[in-house]
Amino acid sequence: MASTAQKRLTQLSNIIHPTTTVASFRTKLPPTATVDYTPLNPVNFLLRSAQIYPNKTAIIYGQKRYSYVDFALRVKNFAIALVNQYNIKPGERVAILCPNTPPILEAHFAIPAARAVITAINYRLNAEEVNYIIQHSEAKMFIIDAEYKHLVPADLDIPVIFITEEAKDPYEEMLRSGESGRWQDLELVADEREVFGFSYTSGSTGKPKGVRHAYRGAYLSALSLSVHAQMSAETFPWAVTAVAGTHIMLRKIDYEQIWHHLLYDGVTQYNGAPTLQTEIVNHPSAKPLHRKVTVHTGGSSPSSVLLKELESLNIHARHIYGLTETFGPTAGTYDQIQINHLPDEERYVMMARQGYADIVADEMCVMDSQTGKEVPMDGKTIGEITIRGNIVMKDYYKDPEATKKAFRNGVFWSGDLAVRHPDGGVEIKDRSKDIVISGGENISSIEIESVILHLEDVLEVAVVAGPDEKWGEHPVAFVVPKHGRTVTAGKVTSFCKSRLAGFKMPKTVYIVSELPKTSTGKTQKFVLRERLWNAKEKKVN
Amino acid sequence: MASTAQKRLTQLSNIIHPTTTVASFRTKLPPTATVDYTPLNPVNFLLRSAQIYPNKTAIIYGQKRYSYVDFALRVKNFAIALVNQYNIKPGERVAILCPNTPPILEAHFAIPAARAVITAINYRLNAEEVNYIIQHSEAKMFIIDAEYKHLVPADLDIPVIFITEEAKDPYEEMLRSGESGRWQDLELVADEREVFGFSYTSGSTGKPKGVRHAYRGAYLSALSLSVHAQMSAETFPWAVTAVAGTHIMLRKIDYEQIWHHLLYDGVTQYNGAPTLQTEIVNHPSAKPLHRKVTVHTGGSSPSSVLLKELESLNIHARHIYGLTETFGPTAGTYDQIQINHLPDEERYVMMARQGYADIVADEMCVMDSQTGKEVPMDGKTIGEITIRGNIVMKDYYKDPEATKKAFRNGVFWSGDLAVRHPDGGVEIKDRSKDIVISGGENISSIEIESVILHLEDVLEVAVVAGPDEKWGEHPVAFVVPKHGRTVTAGKVTSFCKSRLAGFKMPKTVYIVSELPKTSTGKTQKFVLRERLWNAKEKKVN
Repeated sequence: MASTAQKRLTQLSNIIHPTTTVASFRTKLPPTATVDYTPLNPVNFLLRSAQIYPNKTAIIYGQKRYSYVDFALRVKNFAIALVNQYNIKPGERVAILCPNTPPILEAHFAIPAARAVITAINYRLNAEEVNYIIQHSEAKMFIIDAEYKHLVPADLDIPVIFITEEAKDPYEEMLRSGESGRWQDLELVADEREVFGFSYTSGSTGKPKGVRHAYRGAYLSALSLSVHAQMSAETFPWAVTAVAGTHIMLRKIDYEQIWHHLLYDGVTQYNGAPTLQTEIVNHPSAKPLHRKVTVHTGGSSPSSVLLKELESLNIHARHIYGLTETFGPTAGTYDQIQINHLPDEERYVMMARQGYADIVADEMCVMDSQTGKEVPMDGKTIGEITIRGNIVMKDYYKDPEATKKAFRNGVFWSGDLAVRHPDGGVEIKDRSKDIVISGGENISSIEIESVILHLEDVLEVAVVAGPDEKWGEHPVAFVVPKHGRTVTAGKVTSFCKSRLAGFKMPKTVYIVSELPKTSTGKTQKFVLRERLWNAKEKKVN
Repeated sequence: MASTAQKRLTQLSNIIHPTTTVASFRTKLPPTATVDYTPLNPVNFLLRSAQIYPNKTAIIYGQKRYSYVDFALRVKNFAIALVNQYNIKPGERVAILCPNTPPILEAHFAIPAARAVITAINYRLNAEEVNYIIQHSEAKMFIIDAEYKHLVPADLDIPVIFITEEAKDPYEEMLRSGESGRWQDLELVADEREVFGFSYTSGSTGKPKGVRHAYRGAYLSALSLSVHAQMSAETFPWAVTAVAGTHIMLRKIDYEQIWHHLLYDGVTQYNGAPTLQTEIVNHPSAKPLHRKVTVHTGGSSPSSVLLKELESLNIHARHIYGLTETFGPTAGTYDQIQINHLPDEERYVMMARQGYADIVADEMCVMDSQTGKEVPMDGKTIGEITIRGNIVMKDYYKDPEATKKAFRNGVFWSGDLAVRHPDGGVEIKDRSKDIVISGGENISSIEIESVILHLEDVLEVAVVAGPDEKWGEHPVAFVVPKHGRTVTAGKVTSFCKSRLAGFKMPKTVYIVSELPKTSTGKTQKFVLRERLWNAKEKKVN
């Protein structure tokens, strides 16, 4: 009996990977590795998953399916090509601009596998910003999806590889050129505190800053996400690969396609900002899912209406918080176990908070930027969120001044203004640059916006500080009505009157058709402020 | 609306911890900590859980319930007492001998919180072995449960603290003496590669060896277990605490009590050797559980009968593998996702294998101890399991020879003989010292034992090498019949004949009433071997 089973298993094993072997997914050990110490490196997650789950689907992209063996071989080919064909040296930057398609995922493993430094560039930036990042990071090579070829700087004197997804795709040809090399020809990084990646901030207040991350943090951050996501996966390259999850990739946000995957591809996790969730719940294909899906959402706080609608579809939100400087998410809201005894409305209030630092992060605090001390945990006193530990960036590249400013008092200052509740939970009140300071009082623009958003015909709102001759500043609201609806300034004002303290009342309300946005969809409040303050100067002159 | 909810939440927060605050669960930062680097230390898991889940039940022990606040305060008191009352210095060893009751758990956090080194001693050892470990580790202090007071060495010249669980319990008095100190009076370890604990091997082949473990490995091992255990918990102090799980503690193995907890306390995970699982499934209180429970089992391979019985009770086994030298479990068998399409019998064959290294471990290999090279992955060629990476011990304390022997060729040699299947999965065939070498052929004692165990009236069996004048050695079987049943040597031999190759046939079969066992319940095969070989020498003389 056992021997029959044994025979079938051996046959099965042969079917699993006829041409590759477990041993082929190995690299040379870094010179610092000892029996009891190996540098923490997320590339190892891919190698392990390819060994153990060779046949498992790693990537779904339209009709394409790559197994973990396919994935690891493509990454290996990519890395070998960087080293052999393009002569990329350890520590050199390789820039990539690509929507959410397989090459961006492959680059997150291949570039570190070549001991180079990944510089992923947001495809929603403009040509000038892209050029700035390539120059600032001193990239030695640029890989770019052909859809965005208009973003390639003129006179660029480094190799440019296009991803065309057509016959003779230059990206695929590059990969083929690496076929002859082996994983063992690659030597992984020796020091886990070395830089594996540059991420650029969105630059809503000036030039994008080059955030430098270390291998150690990337590895720990991935493990932490895996624990928090309950062994399933998040839409993050390393965490999903660590648990051998399947990455479903979409070139564009396409809600019909998203619903197709939710309904038919066994999705267990995804993530996206609250605005994306709103589109998902309101899509005609939306219907309750048989399988529980977890969504990680952040960027702004999800409303109670949205949370309720998601739950009715069996989609359960975990509200996360983080910054480019912390590998993205580094904190998450209350676990359900802490709040599931509360009535829905109270539960949603808690879920809208930023909550607590994740398992590998040090404590997230709220500090007074003047004194460098923690504010009282009273749910009222506003301070700035500070973070420290293994998931914080090393520095901003070639920007010692910004680095020094961000790293005062031995902690990283996030620029987000928040209160801390008696239970230690953190709740954001505003970006530090967006707070309105009127007669010495801090007024949260987010608080005023939340009130105005309860007006039924309002689609969006932004509150910023306008000039006030007596109080220095006062709140000004820019309100966008829903399509085909009307909102008047008078209605907004009277609505606020019963809901806000006098000093928090928006002194002026502008009804506008749209708000200025950054490439990542954030409202550019500085544009609105400039409009107000330039007008004032004009008036003064 | 929001403000009513807010009020209730603030009230709730006050109820949660009236006397302690989030900030009280903090230590001084180690001098090496920087904004982007904190030494990996599992003590931080406790501090985080106490901050975020203060009210959650951390420990259940009989009628006692400790919340995470209680737990963290008790640990703090313990650590402060070590430093202030007992003058324990960083790096000094503190020995503890205690069954599975709260002090052993508290010690796993308090001793490192005092920057001392925990030396946990197995309570099933004898007085001589306990004395050896205390002397060998140069312990500065000994904490021991009063039930085991007969194990305290005579003339011991270090402080001994008894845990009595009675009024005026000296252990509780020690904790009270630390009440005045604060977490912030404690400074955690500065270098994550320092030693946090000594674990002694069971010493079945000689004196116990003092395995020295580092903080880094303990931390990564806990994270890894948390990922593999799907965000729930295992019966391991750090992993459970990291995810704020509840530790249920039992002074003794009590199957009635275990079933009580399984049925009424929402157990999601536990672990224990296959023999313990056998008792659990055969207990009169056994009935199918409403909630899925995961059991981690190891030490020997679970049989297909046992796996089937467990599954019928909604208890799902994950077969794990590890050694004292690797923080316990460091590998686990196939995930269900890989094998759930197989018929039960084949699935159980796979589950009985040791499988693959865990997520933070480097690859587990099978190597030829002569050549130091890997054996072919053919499921047939026997070699020795080797392990390397962050979850391997630093060394054996004061035993450079054993350390050197264990760490040949840049890997740790486990002493377990195994084959590697084409899919990379590892399957143990024998301990290297238990293999029978007959006429140059390696014969797995486990293989012969597995066959004999299929005889219905057999309770236990041990196969060892007996002296053979022609072939050097041959297999000899010691068979224990089930209570009230009879087994004859002839029956065993004829049963084996149709199931084993001729050279693997046990040449002699002894029917015995019991087998010699170590303190941890392992069969002492060396005792059986000595019996055979001494008899031979007598015959020769």
